Amino acid sequence: MNIEIRDGDEKKPAQAKKPTDSQSELRQDIITGDWVVIATGRAKRPDDFITKERIEEDPNVADPFVDLVASGQKEPVLVYRKPDGDWSLVVIPNLYPAFAAGRMPKDHSEGPYFAINGVGYHEVIITRDAKKSLADLELWQTAEVVDAYQSRYSSLMTKKSVKYIQIFHNHGKEAGSSIAHPHSQLMAIPVVSPYIELQLRGAELYYRNHKANVFQSILDHECESGVRRVYENEHFLVFCPFASRVAFELWILPKRSDNPYFERITEEEKISLADALQKTLKALQKGLGDPPYNFFLNTSPCDGREYPHYRWHVEILPKTSVWAGFELSTGIEVSTIEPEKAAEYLREQIQSE
Amino acid sequence: MNIEIRDGDEKKPAQAKKPTDSQSELRQDIITGDWVVIATGRAKRPDDFITKERIEEDPNVADPFVDLVASGQKEPVLVYRKPDGDWSLVVIPNLYPAFAAGRMPKDHSEGPYFAINGVGYHEVIITRDAKKSLADLELWQTAEVVDAYQSRYSSLMTKKSVKYIQIFHNHGKEAGSSIAHPHSQLMAIPVVSPYIELQLRGAELYYRNHKANVFQSILDHECESGVRRVYENEHFLVFCPFASRVAFELWILPKRSDNPYFERITEEEKISLADALQKTLKALQKGLGDPPYNFFLNTSPCDGREYPHYRWHVEILPKTSVWAGFELSTGIEVSTIEPEKAAEYLREQIQSE
Repeated sequence: MNIEIRDGDEKKPAQAKKPTDSQSELRQDIITGDWVVIATGRAKRPDDFITKERIEEDPNVADPFVDLVASGQKEPVLVYRKPDGDWSLVVIPNLYPAFAAGRMPKDHSEGPYFAINGVGYHEVIITRDAKKSLADLELWQTAEVVDAYQSRYSSLMTKKSVKYIQIFHNHGKEAGSSIAHPHSQLMAIPVVSPYIELQLRGAELYYRNHKANVFQSILDHECESGVRRVYENEHFLVFCPFASRVAFELWILPKRSDNPYFERITEEEKISLADALQKTLKALQKGLGDPPYNFFLNTSPCDGREYPHYRWHVEILPKTSVWAGFELSTGIEVSTIEPEKAAEYLREQIQSE
Repeated sequence: MNIEIRDGDEKKPAQAKKPTDSQSELRQDIITGDWVVIATGRAKRPDDFITKERIEEDPNVADPFVDLVASGQKEPVLVYRKPDGDWSLVVIPNLYPAFAAGRMPKDHSEGPYFAINGVGYHEVIITRDAKKSLADLELWQTAEVVDAYQSRYSSLMTKKSVKYIQIFHNHGKEAGSSIAHPHSQLMAIPVVSPYIELQLRGAELYYRNHKANVFQSILDHECESGVRRVYENEHFLVFCPFASRVAFELWILPKRSDNPYFERITEEEKISLADALQKTLKALQKGLGDPPYNFFLNTSPCDGREYPHYRWHVEILPKTSVWAGFELSTGIEVSTIEPEKAAEYLREQIQSE
């Protein structure tokens, strides 16, 4: 968020609002140990976050995902078809991959530095309709997306060079999406990502200290307290984390207690996840005026080791602010709405459907 | 950066450029152990990064820093005056602080979660001219800014609740600056920030493994190799880090080998830092068309402990891209220009002055 002195963005002049001292709260992420600031002294109302303007897509740019052959895309690695023969979902290798198939990571070290080549896979998961986001699709269509995530994950996790697979989705230009046509991405990479390492270490440490799974402790407390709960179905809880890194951050946490590995999701859980994802994204769309967002699926590495204290889950970060000098330099994020208020607001959106 | 398939942002259609496999490189940060991707397979030329459009400041918004009394600011805590009596630099407490003076951190824990109140200080360092950025000022004016950093740092580091002091500067709306009038910020906080912790631990570990200071190893290698050097004066080396997190990332590293603590900067070093900072920011301004950027000053915590293996320094992150789903989920940043090419380009800007 923006940590400047308030200025003309506000309707009232700065001096009209009485500043109050020391109202902000430092909350610690129970898993990673990182800190966030909930700056309630400069708190906003939930509807202050409604998206005012979005960067428009250039209407002259052709959609490269409408006709995959004409736009020169690579051969699909997975295709789901509708009864009429047309595709409903397709997975293609990224034309300009950040990671690409190749020989095993090769040492590119220089002086004291260490580097390897970016061996891996970079795929794009595309739904047919150019205009409908995951929130707008039929439930079966979003379930197909989840199914494709699992299918591609399972195919790539056994590749020799792959240590971690990240699945993510960028919605809106401000969230880094350069193509308006809805799509998710998958990157299979030769190292375990630093953020997952941090969560794994934290989960391990929590288990040692409390003889409990940290995700179960979160689930139990959030179900009991209810103040940050946004939605719940048979297999998943959706809530705003206690130490939210951005306004309206959301997590979708599986209730099943014995599953660190996304690839082991059941058929029933897939439908349930699709439902939770849609309800949540719809609540954001309705409550905040279709904000840009990123969501991603965090799971255990596929590096041959066991991670009994982890639990796969989905994290959703709406792009409600810019991370500026303080966030970038410290790694401490500043949020201007309490997660409890954000949760209440999103809960209302779902209840009023 | 944007990790989508390339689309109409490019002048050429996607299929006109032949994709090449496995050209990207995973580089490891020698201090933190984190990874970055240098995606040379989608490499751009340096001038591809020239800022095309900037979000304009609203001309109807009054500058709150021109007349501090009229805009209802708090009493300055530091004022530097010109011979004519007008101020040239002023430091004021932030009207809406993310951290504010108060009693010692108080426990706000809830269930399994931990939180404390945000006790601390949040100040704004303002230079007189509303239009001139640090790159445009006279050398003595930028030296005054460095002097003010040190002065306020020294005043706040002994406060009981303060464990870490972060000084930073946001330039441009895209980098999170809501007020066009150039200013830096200082936040004195009751915890050591996660990013500094990571660097401290890394420096400690490097010392144990190599019996050497990691910052000295970097300095020695960068001076010897020269490929990433951008500028150098008596006391500082400016270079693009081997594992740059964004295109055109820059570090200003002191040559003095025995100083983990910014507050111990000498008078001579202050002038030298002002020179290095100006040359660097001017090179960015000239080479990339005044891009938005954040810079920050990383130094040892002021928590009463010693950090012999650390070295204070400045990190500059131009806002050349958006961190999207992959970066947010993994903590691995993707950059589309080699730091060596970025350094060469910026070096040319300085040499052609």
